[in-house]
Amino acid sequence: MAIEELNLGVTCDMHVHVREGTMCELVTPTIREGGISVAYIMPNLQPPITTLDRVINYKETLQKIAPKTTFLMSFYLSKDLTPALIHEAARVGAIQGVKCYPAGVTTNSAAGVDPNDFSAFYPIFQAMEEEGLVLNLHGEKPSVSNGHEDDIHVLNAEEKFLPALSKLHSDFPNLKIILEHCTTEAAINAINEINKDVKNASDVRVAATLTAHHLYLTIDDWAGNPINFCKPVAKLPRDKRALVEAAISGKPYFFFGTDSAPHPLSNKAKHIGVCAGVFSQSLAIPYVAQVFEENDSLDKLKGFVSTSGLQFYNVKCEQLKSKDNVIIYRNKQIIPETISDNKGTIIAPFKAGDELNWTVRWESV
Amino acid sequence: MAIEELNLGVTCDMHVHVREGTMCELVTPTIREGGISVAYIMPNLQPPITTLDRVINYKETLQKIAPKTTFLMSFYLSKDLTPALIHEAARVGAIQGVKCYPAGVTTNSAAGVDPNDFSAFYPIFQAMEEEGLVLNLHGEKPSVSNGHEDDIHVLNAEEKFLPALSKLHSDFPNLKIILEHCTTEAAINAINEINKDVKNASDVRVAATLTAHHLYLTIDDWAGNPINFCKPVAKLPRDKRALVEAAISGKPYFFFGTDSAPHPLSNKAKHIGVCAGVFSQSLAIPYVAQVFEENDSLDKLKGFVSTSGLQFYNVKCEQLKSKDNVIIYRNKQIIPETISDNKGTIIAPFKAGDELNWTVRWESV
Repeated sequence: MAIEELNLGVTCDMHVHVREGTMCELVTPTIREGGISVAYIMPNLQPPITTLDRVINYKETLQKIAPKTTFLMSFYLSKDLTPALIHEAARVGAIQGVKCYPAGVTTNSAAGVDPNDFSAFYPIFQAMEEEGLVLNLHGEKPSVSNGHEDDIHVLNAEEKFLPALSKLHSDFPNLKIILEHCTTEAAINAINEINKDVKNASDVRVAATLTAHHLYLTIDDWAGNPINFCKPVAKLPRDKRALVEAAISGKPYFFFGTDSAPHPLSNKAKHIGVCAGVFSQSLAIPYVAQVFEENDSLDKLKGFVSTSGLQFYNVKCEQLKSKDNVIIYRNKQIIPETISDNKGTIIAPFKAGDELNWTVRWESV
Repeated sequence: MAIEELNLGVTCDMHVHVREGTMCELVTPTIREGGISVAYIMPNLQPPITTLDRVINYKETLQKIAPKTTFLMSFYLSKDLTPALIHEAARVGAIQGVKCYPAGVTTNSAAGVDPNDFSAFYPIFQAMEEEGLVLNLHGEKPSVSNGHEDDIHVLNAEEKFLPALSKLHSDFPNLKIILEHCTTEAAINAINEINKDVKNASDVRVAATLTAHHLYLTIDDWAGNPINFCKPVAKLPRDKRALVEAAISGKPYFFFGTDSAPHPLSNKAKHIGVCAGVFSQSLAIPYVAQVFEENDSLDKLKGFVSTSGLQFYNVKCEQLKSKDNVIIYRNKQIIPETISDNKGTIIAPFKAGDELNWTVRWESV
């Protein structure tokens, strides 16, 4: 018998961009509207978040906009960070992780690091390992065109990064690392390989987040449709199948992170310099529920959007701003063409105009 | 000593889209402005050109706009064509070839054919072979996602088409075939393989055109820059190197066809449904001259943009509307941001804002 309703408990989206200003006011409430209770917030503001004051202020701003959403916060890995700052931030509970952007690969990553040599940051990683903080990796090498074997381009940029992931794990075996927004079969294989001896979810040290949109898109979908252009770009059909397989696997080292990245529609409808990012926040859970349903795996959905992420981040009950449960129920809805405020901000959500089978509601406990 | 000036003779661009109406009036004069004397005109109007009347009328329209340009014309391969029509069109010199579009792969290709089975068109090909007409292939299979081995997507669509090219050549060994706008190392290898025993240029039966933009672009250039989105899409760095190598090889079976495909800027600056095509007509020769110069191959440029194409199409002196020679001389110019008329049509040319080293002038003979 088809499932008509499902309690997903306290859900989490472990990769969220909510920006600042009017955009932030518009999208932050959509975290809850999309069925997400706990959101891990990315620090790639301009300038990036690298101080205690800023991360605390940013969290307060978000909390005012969305009082029932639990925000997990992060620093932006840069030379501005020190081991002392990491220890202090951890001690006061200001951050749960540090995001590492290779310079130049995506939105507001100009202040990022050289992914060919992380050694300058080893004291930071050491402090993070001691504090149990998470290292969030944007796992792409910047594009270069050197010769047949050495070429790096948007299609193989993630695969070319994987040796750096392995090295980090080997140098810091207890550091919690997430390969964010995996897009390739190669990345899925690498994460499976690293975890091949893991017996318990609590033993996972290297995990991967999967977005909603990469469970739908391939290269053909963004060729000619800038609204679907994001970094890392969606890859080939075989890669998408590997991502879906990982998502529905029930393995605790694959969990949900939308990488929902809002841009004004005017920055997507351009002939040059389109901003990279897909906005999927407002229907985050319905998007993935649909994929799980199509793959007869709704029984694995709670693990993917709740249990595994909360466990990896070690989210405590007392951290939660709300313990409300997310229920999805079978109820068709059309994805709106745009989402906007009364100040001129317009976003086009992922799959605008398409139909989804599931709707979200909240239940107090 | 650096070459300062070069006589390219009677140049040809064997793949040109000039559309109809105001767009046609705007872009048709740019054929000559870009240094091209002979232009092979594509038939993908709406509806496509499949009758003698229409192709004759279209040519007259173009000739009025650009009296000094020599237009070679084509039919659109469809069920509307008959062997009798092919024979008649050849007899009166109305067409030099027939363009084959797989259904659904690019602009105005909805009326195209199923590239998995050309057999319905064998009587047409037979007639073309007898008349010495050229079959112009848009060599892509439509995308499908079946399973790891069978997936077809924008990246491998051309490679997946190559067996169909080989079969056509084997079934019609004297039919002149062009694999248009090659974009992959695999296609270059296939063309080289087919021609491996060719001793004289006059023996070439299967050739390939190369565009200007595919000598510059890779996937990274159109990811986020819809102005560079075209079909076939630009591929990987190794593919681009293979194309440049073919262009500068001096081999008579690789010659110039811009596939210049103008779209109103408003159809390029969209968040969904961007039109495929790059407009390179207005600076066609300077674009390729730059690539040949960078590869120390200016001595091969005349073969690529003149001799080889004219020979393959067997263009006769008496067909030429003008015998003026094209001279390029070293003179830097900035590519304009847009090209427009006073009726609201705006196009953004390829590499708008960039600098080119060469300028074109015409010399009467």
